[in-house]
Amino acid sequence: MKFARFKQKDGTIIQGVLTEDGIHQIEGDIFSEWNYTNAIYNDAELELLEPLRPRHVIGIGANYVENTDDLPSELPTIPVFFYKPVSSVIGSGKPIVIPSKIGEVKFESELAAIIGKRTRNITEEEVEKSIFGYTIANDVTAPQFFHEAGHWTIGKSFDTFTPLGPYIETELDPDKVFVEAYLNGDKKQDSETSLMIFSIRKMIAYLSTVMTLEPGDVILTGSPLGAEMMKDGDEIICRIDGIGELHNSVEKG
Amino acid sequence: MKFARFKQKDGTIIQGVLTEDGIHQIEGDIFSEWNYTNAIYNDAELELLEPLRPRHVIGIGANYVENTDDLPSELPTIPVFFYKPVSSVIGSGKPIVIPSKIGEVKFESELAAIIGKRTRNITEEEVEKSIFGYTIANDVTAPQFFHEAGHWTIGKSFDTFTPLGPYIETELDPDKVFVEAYLNGDKKQDSETSLMIFSIRKMIAYLSTVMTLEPGDVILTGSPLGAEMMKDGDEIICRIDGIGELHNSVEKG
Repeated sequence: MKFARFKQKDGTIIQGVLTEDGIHQIEGDIFSEWNYTNAIYNDAELELLEPLRPRHVIGIGANYVENTDDLPSELPTIPVFFYKPVSSVIGSGKPIVIPSKIGEVKFESELAAIIGKRTRNITEEEVEKSIFGYTIANDVTAPQFFHEAGHWTIGKSFDTFTPLGPYIETELDPDKVFVEAYLNGDKKQDSETSLMIFSIRKMIAYLSTVMTLEPGDVILTGSPLGAEMMKDGDEIICRIDGIGELHNSVEKG
Repeated sequence: MKFARFKQKDGTIIQGVLTEDGIHQIEGDIFSEWNYTNAIYNDAELELLEPLRPRHVIGIGANYVENTDDLPSELPTIPVFFYKPVSSVIGSGKPIVIPSKIGEVKFESELAAIIGKRTRNITEEEVEKSIFGYTIANDVTAPQFFHEAGHWTIGKSFDTFTPLGPYIETELDPDKVFVEAYLNGDKKQDSETSLMIFSIRKMIAYLSTVMTLEPGDVILTGSPLGAEMMKDGDEIICRIDGIGELHNSVEKG
């Protein structure tokens, strides 16, 4: 099932489920209780938004290898986690804005897991029950703003730096998908999620020993090899079969 | 004016303003429109909570010098900012819980600024208008979980690692206060905010060039020299004259 959020022409924000008949409007909280309304829309009537306003956006650094042979036999003790502010989230179709002092920013196509229930101290086996669904993220990054002592915060935090969407898919098998990116139509990233160093299960089980995760927390699971810089006028598409395409233009600030 | 949040005996959460007659309950959004109700309580009837549930908690690293002579003539280009998850926030009077694999955690007493309006690309002179008020934070930290490549995320993120409170004071002059900490009654930190490397104005003006700040964003302004480790059974008080005392016990996880 695919959940999405839209803006109506009068500015009202609605939630919907994608059906064969069109976008079927729903009411309620997708994480607890919701119902279908009688309204069905077609794409042209609505402006697509990011599929949720996250509570937290949590990312993980350097989480993919090139080949399964490169997977480490022993995992690092402390994963490189980072936060992105919720102010950086935009939907598919909105422009990524390059900060005024620099000329380019990096795209990073990623599978994003969305937490659906309060989660604390769980095992890897329990992770699946905590995940509501999956969407696509572009973890846009300005490495020019990384601090020399290793802090990535500023370089990950600019407004528009976290495109999310287009939809939340609740029935994806996250172990069997390829994470792709196309810059101006050219394929740049295309790796199966089996090339992750920390699997989604390991990552979320670890995080749950640190912090209480809640519905609406979004976990970006890392980007495959092949991420590149983008400049004014570029078009970037992040794609995962079964979820859809997250497309954004790039413009100067 | 001092704003606070409380839990009533039946579990209801209320907001109040501290007055000479007691805690005067208010209704509405403290950042936009609110009104006094007819209810006035005394301390014993209510359990104090953190004075707000933040939207973001943003910290800055290594922001104090020992003496004004040590202030750098030129500021670093990129400040060391970091985020703490909102799941780490607790109020005064609640225990700080040491993660199970370690034996001690660090206290860091800090002045915290609370953003009161949408803020984007402002100058240092405009910062004051964006601040709703101030509270006290304890930026509890487990440096044992810092990543060797410089990432502090995990070490700052555990549940209970961000005590905030006791109140939000809207009439503080942030340039004229001392940030203090007392561990089991012994004074450990006591520095004037004039010893900050990035002043509150510089810090928030810089942040506003990166991200759109919104009401409820909390900015921890760094901790003076003197922070130490705490262990099971310790009591920590962070104190700023004009706001009050933020006190928390420390216990094993």
